[in-house]
Amino acid sequence: MAKKYSLDHQVLYYEGDVTNQMTIAMLLNVVVLTSEAQNRNLGIDHNVLGEQGLGWVVTSYSMKVNRMPRVDELITVTTRGTSYNRFFAFREFWVVDADGQELVKIDSIWVLMDEVKRKITTISPEVVSQYESEAVKKVPRLPRPTAPEAVIAEKNYQIRYNDIDFNGHVNNSRYLEWIVDTLPMTFLEQHNPRTIDIRFENEVVYGQTVQGTVELLGDDSQSISRHEIKFDDTIAALAEITWQKATLTEDK
Amino acid sequence: MAKKYSLDHQVLYYEGDVTNQMTIAMLLNVVVLTSEAQNRNLGIDHNVLGEQGLGWVVTSYSMKVNRMPRVDELITVTTRGTSYNRFFAFREFWVVDADGQELVKIDSIWVLMDEVKRKITTISPEVVSQYESEAVKKVPRLPRPTAPEAVIAEKNYQIRYNDIDFNGHVNNSRYLEWIVDTLPMTFLEQHNPRTIDIRFENEVVYGQTVQGTVELLGDDSQSISRHEIKFDDTIAALAEITWQKATLTEDK
Repeated sequence: MAKKYSLDHQVLYYEGDVTNQMTIAMLLNVVVLTSEAQNRNLGIDHNVLGEQGLGWVVTSYSMKVNRMPRVDELITVTTRGTSYNRFFAFREFWVVDADGQELVKIDSIWVLMDEVKRKITTISPEVVSQYESEAVKKVPRLPRPTAPEAVIAEKNYQIRYNDIDFNGHVNNSRYLEWIVDTLPMTFLEQHNPRTIDIRFENEVVYGQTVQGTVELLGDDSQSISRHEIKFDDTIAALAEITWQKATLTEDK
Repeated sequence: MAKKYSLDHQVLYYEGDVTNQMTIAMLLNVVVLTSEAQNRNLGIDHNVLGEQGLGWVVTSYSMKVNRMPRVDELITVTTRGTSYNRFFAFREFWVVDADGQELVKIDSIWVLMDEVKRKITTISPEVVSQYESEAVKKVPRLPRPTAPEAVIAEKNYQIRYNDIDFNGHVNNSRYLEWIVDTLPMTFLEQHNPRTIDIRFENEVVYGQTVQGTVELLGDDSQSISRHEIKFDDTIAALAEITWQKATLTEDK
């Protein structure tokens, strides 16, 4: 069984939204922080991999949300690099509250990039040996979001200086900021995410302007939003989120 | 002498930029986190004030930077509500590294808003008594940035869902993201801020699009950037930043 690693995090006010819940984007930041902390703990952080011209890149997340963490709340994120095959690594995350109740479960698929060629490369057993990941024939397939059809809103987002990570790439959590922002604020104030599936298709770069579009399906109590982030005719990311009407007992 | 309050904070990777230094925007978030932690510690946080229909709003910051905090670094932010008069409160912040070396000093001016009328109201001695702030005739005047003249770049920023704070207003740190983003990335990669003065003039709201403009003065070793954020003909904020060419010893 793959090694687990845990990180405690207190949700700070600037990681929350108008409902006092942590934003999906900030949750993904803390999730990546946890996996990078495990990488460091095992002696193979991004600097070590970078010296070999390699870097991990996430291609998709699938999140199941019981409840989003609240501002001020202390959460614990646990992760393990569960399994891998020749080209894909499967990593799991569990986000729990101070009582150990599961708030969010996240499945993710990662690929190893050759940073010089900017191409996906094979995952050698040496790179993952420290994680004690299971070598498998097929890693789990995560849900594949479909593009929005009856688009209800389109917004443009220019890639900003602060969107760029230490590694020179756009921080993946920014996509979630754009995706959520295409929905009306009145909707976001009254609905909680229950599942979030996102698939990153093509990289966007500094200075570029991307278009975000959204379709909203379902009735008031249970809705599905479908999202596309694209530039010119190229898809950068596709996402699907299911939402549940917020109830008073959830104390939004 | 006014009571001091300190908060420790580890700079997380998503609070940094491509140079691995904390962004100015994120530093301001942690600064506000510290003052709100003192408010809470003294039993007068935003919820308590909100019940009286009141809320603190910052009108200007003046920052002196020896060195910006680095990603992973443990910093301590200390604050005190130094002095106040009928309409203005003067609050100081000191950001130090793990060895106690001063990284950043921040002066700030705050006003008390009547949240119902959305107008500035007088600061009663009761509201500030817990801070043991000194009642003064005049609080210090912070530098007043002037508008850019020879504009070298203009960019539009639409206010997004994630820009909105728990209190329903635009998080002030967002202005710093826009302000910094109007400068070329090549400039930002090679220069460190030494002083940052920002003055908030008028509130912007969700859905609005603001224009950011910038003028760049000086030579390569020492530059001054002047910034304006406006909507229609209304100034939302003015800022002036002095920059020093990054040297190799600073290990950017």
